[in-house]
Amino acid sequence: MTSKNFHWTQQAFEHNARAGILHTAHGSVPTPTFMPVGTVGTVKAMTMDAVRSTGAGIVLGNTYHLMLRPGAELVHELGGLHRFMDWSGPILTDSGGFQVMSLGALRKLDEEGVAFRSHIDGSAHKLTPESSTDIQYLLDATITMCFDECPALPASYKTIANSMRMSMRWAERSKKRFKLRPGYAQFGIVQGGIEPDLRAESAETLTKIGFEGYAIGGLAVGEPQEQMFETLNFTVPFLPAEQPRYLMGVGTPQDMLGAIQRGIDMFDCVIPTRAGRTGRAYTGRGTLNIKNACHIHDQRPIDPECDCPACKKHSRAYIHHLFRTKEILGAILLTWHNLAYYQRLMRIIRQAILDQNLKEKATELQSNWKRKDWTMDEWN
Amino acid sequence: MTSKNFHWTQQAFEHNARAGILHTAHGSVPTPTFMPVGTVGTVKAMTMDAVRSTGAGIVLGNTYHLMLRPGAELVHELGGLHRFMDWSGPILTDSGGFQVMSLGALRKLDEEGVAFRSHIDGSAHKLTPESSTDIQYLLDATITMCFDECPALPASYKTIANSMRMSMRWAERSKKRFKLRPGYAQFGIVQGGIEPDLRAESAETLTKIGFEGYAIGGLAVGEPQEQMFETLNFTVPFLPAEQPRYLMGVGTPQDMLGAIQRGIDMFDCVIPTRAGRTGRAYTGRGTLNIKNACHIHDQRPIDPECDCPACKKHSRAYIHHLFRTKEILGAILLTWHNLAYYQRLMRIIRQAILDQNLKEKATELQSNWKRKDWTMDEWN
Repeated sequence: MTSKNFHWTQQAFEHNARAGILHTAHGSVPTPTFMPVGTVGTVKAMTMDAVRSTGAGIVLGNTYHLMLRPGAELVHELGGLHRFMDWSGPILTDSGGFQVMSLGALRKLDEEGVAFRSHIDGSAHKLTPESSTDIQYLLDATITMCFDECPALPASYKTIANSMRMSMRWAERSKKRFKLRPGYAQFGIVQGGIEPDLRAESAETLTKIGFEGYAIGGLAVGEPQEQMFETLNFTVPFLPAEQPRYLMGVGTPQDMLGAIQRGIDMFDCVIPTRAGRTGRAYTGRGTLNIKNACHIHDQRPIDPECDCPACKKHSRAYIHHLFRTKEILGAILLTWHNLAYYQRLMRIIRQAILDQNLKEKATELQSNWKRKDWTMDEWN
Repeated sequence: MTSKNFHWTQQAFEHNARAGILHTAHGSVPTPTFMPVGTVGTVKAMTMDAVRSTGAGIVLGNTYHLMLRPGAELVHELGGLHRFMDWSGPILTDSGGFQVMSLGALRKLDEEGVAFRSHIDGSAHKLTPESSTDIQYLLDATITMCFDECPALPASYKTIANSMRMSMRWAERSKKRFKLRPGYAQFGIVQGGIEPDLRAESAETLTKIGFEGYAIGGLAVGEPQEQMFETLNFTVPFLPAEQPRYLMGVGTPQDMLGAIQRGIDMFDCVIPTRAGRTGRAYTGRGTLNIKNACHIHDQRPIDPECDCPACKKHSRAYIHHLFRTKEILGAILLTWHNLAYYQRLMRIIRQAILDQNLKEKATELQSNWKRKDWTMDEWN
C-alpha cells in the first residue's frame, strides 16, 4: 500500500526520461534530482544554508556512519536527523548494507544479517533488515531504504543470484518492519548484477512486495559506463512507471544524463563533495584540477556560467592559492561549486524534458563536456 | 602629514575608553573594533560573507605569509588583496616583522633588515622597512604597518632599548617609503618592552615622525595580563588623542575589555579563529570546550545570547559530534561563533561607552565570564 501523502507525479516525459515532483512529509522536490551526501549528519565542508543555496531539495544520510557516531538513539533524542543537521527538507537514508559490505574482513554475513566491527574503534555491531529499518526510523528518514546485500563485481552468476534472492527476502523483512507514516516512504532495491533475468526477477519480486519507490543498487561499483547503461535498459522497464526510481551511488554528470535518459529520477554520489575537497571542479566544459599550476595567474572564475560564491566572487588563482596553502576555504568553495554545478545540471535536464528537447540538450551538454575549458576567445 | 581622508573621529569617551569611527578609503568602521586575522588571504574556515555576517568591519592580512604565498606581485596583478579575498572593507596588513622574528634560527637581523628562510620551502628572502612597505603597497593594504623588531620577553633593558631604537630608525625609513594615498594610512608601532621610559621615548619618536595611527607592539608575548595593562597605563598617555590606537595581537575578551578601558581602539588576534578550529567556544559565560563529553546530549545552543548560525541552528550535541567525527563543519561553525562573539563584545562595549556606563557594564561582563556556563535554572 502506497502512502496517501508520499507520491511522485509526472509532469512530462521524453522517451524514457521523466520530469516530475516528489511529494513528501518534508516538502516537494522536482525530479530528476541529485541528493548531496550528508554522511554523518553533515554534507562535508558545507553549511546546510550553503547546500540549500545550490538548489538541493533532498539530501542523503548514511545509516552505517550515523549508527556508530553519534548513534541513532541520540539523533532520535535530539529530535531526529532533520533538526540535528538543520535540514527541514526530505532526507533519504541508506540501509547501511553497502557500507557494511565494503568492510571486508571486518564483517560476517548470514541469512539473519551482517555482524561487523566498527572501522573506528573495532566495536561489534549487527545490522539486519529489522535493525536497519529501526535505525532509519530513529533517524526520522523521510525515505527509508531496504537492507540489502551488494556483492562486489565481477562475481559468478550463482553468487549474484543467491545474493539477490537473499536481498529479496531481506526486502520482505524490511517492509514488514517499516512503520508507514503519512509522507514517509520505503524504497526497495533491485539487485542482480548485470544479469537481465536476475534484475527482472528482483524488480518483479520487489514490485510484488510493494514499495513507495524503487532503487537500482549494485551499479557504479567499477563496471564500465556502457554496462551500467545496458543494465538500466533492461531493468527500468520492470519498474512501475508511476513511482520514483533511484540509481544509487551515481555518479558523474555523464552517468546521470545517460541514466535520466533511461528513466532514472534520483541520484546520490560523493563525487561532487569529495572532488571539491581534493581540487577537482565540475563545469559545463568537463572537469579541471584547480591545483594545476596553469591556474596560478588565472583571473577567470572556475565556470563563467555558475552563480555559486566560488565563481561569483573569486578567481581560479585565488582558489588555486587556497588549495596550495591547504586552507579550509578551498574545500568549502570548491565543494560549493561542484554541488551548484550538479544542481544546475539537474535543472537544465529537467527543463529540457519539460521543453521536449532533451535529445538536443543532451548532445549539446556532451559536446561541451568534451570541449574542455573555455578558450580565451570564447571568454572575451 | 595626515591624509585628508583617513581619520578617526571620537564619538564618546568614558575615562580613557573611547568610542569612535575610523574613516578609510574602503569604508568606515566603528571602534573599538576587533579585526579577524586573514593570514594568507582567508580568515581560516570562513567565507568572507560569513565574516561580514558577524559584523566585522576590518580584517588583517599577514605580509610574511602573503609574500611567500601567493606573492605580493601576484596579489597586485590580481587587483589587490581586497579583490583577491573578496573583502571590500578596510584591510590592515602587518609588516612581517613579528612573524619573521619568530623564525628563530631561520633569520638573521642587522640594521638593514632581516634575512630569513621561508618556513615552507627554505627559500631565502629579505624584509626591510622599504621592502615591507612596498609589499604592503602591492597588497593594497588600507593600513600599512611600519616594519619593526619585536624582541622576545624577558630581555635586558639594554636589549630592549637597542631593539626599540632600531625599530624607530626603521619607522622613519618605513614612513619615507610609504606612498600616502587618500583614505590610506600608515601606523607606527611603539616598542620598548615593559620599560616606562623606553615606551615613552618610542611613542614620542613616532609621534614626531607622524603617522595616521599608532600601534602598541611587543605585548601579548607571554607576559602576565597585569603587566600588559600596566604598560598600556604608562604608554597610551604619550599617544595623540585624536588618532586611532591599535594593540597588536590581543587577545582574550578580558584582555580587550581592559585595554579598551586604557584607551585602545583596535585589536587583532588569532584566538577566536584558532580556538574555533580546536573546539574552544567563547561565550558571555567564559569559555567551554565543545569536545568535552558533557556536551554529548546537550540540546542547548553554545550561547543563548548569540545569533550566529552555530547557536541559532544547532545544539552543542551536534557541534560536539562534528568535532568528534573531525568534520570540517565543526571548525566552520565554531569559528563563526567565536568571531560573532568577539564582534558582539565590541558592540556591547562600544554601546556602553556611548551610554556612559562602561564601568557598570565591565563589572557585569567580568562577573558573567567568571560564572561559567548557564545553569539549567537560568536556561528555563
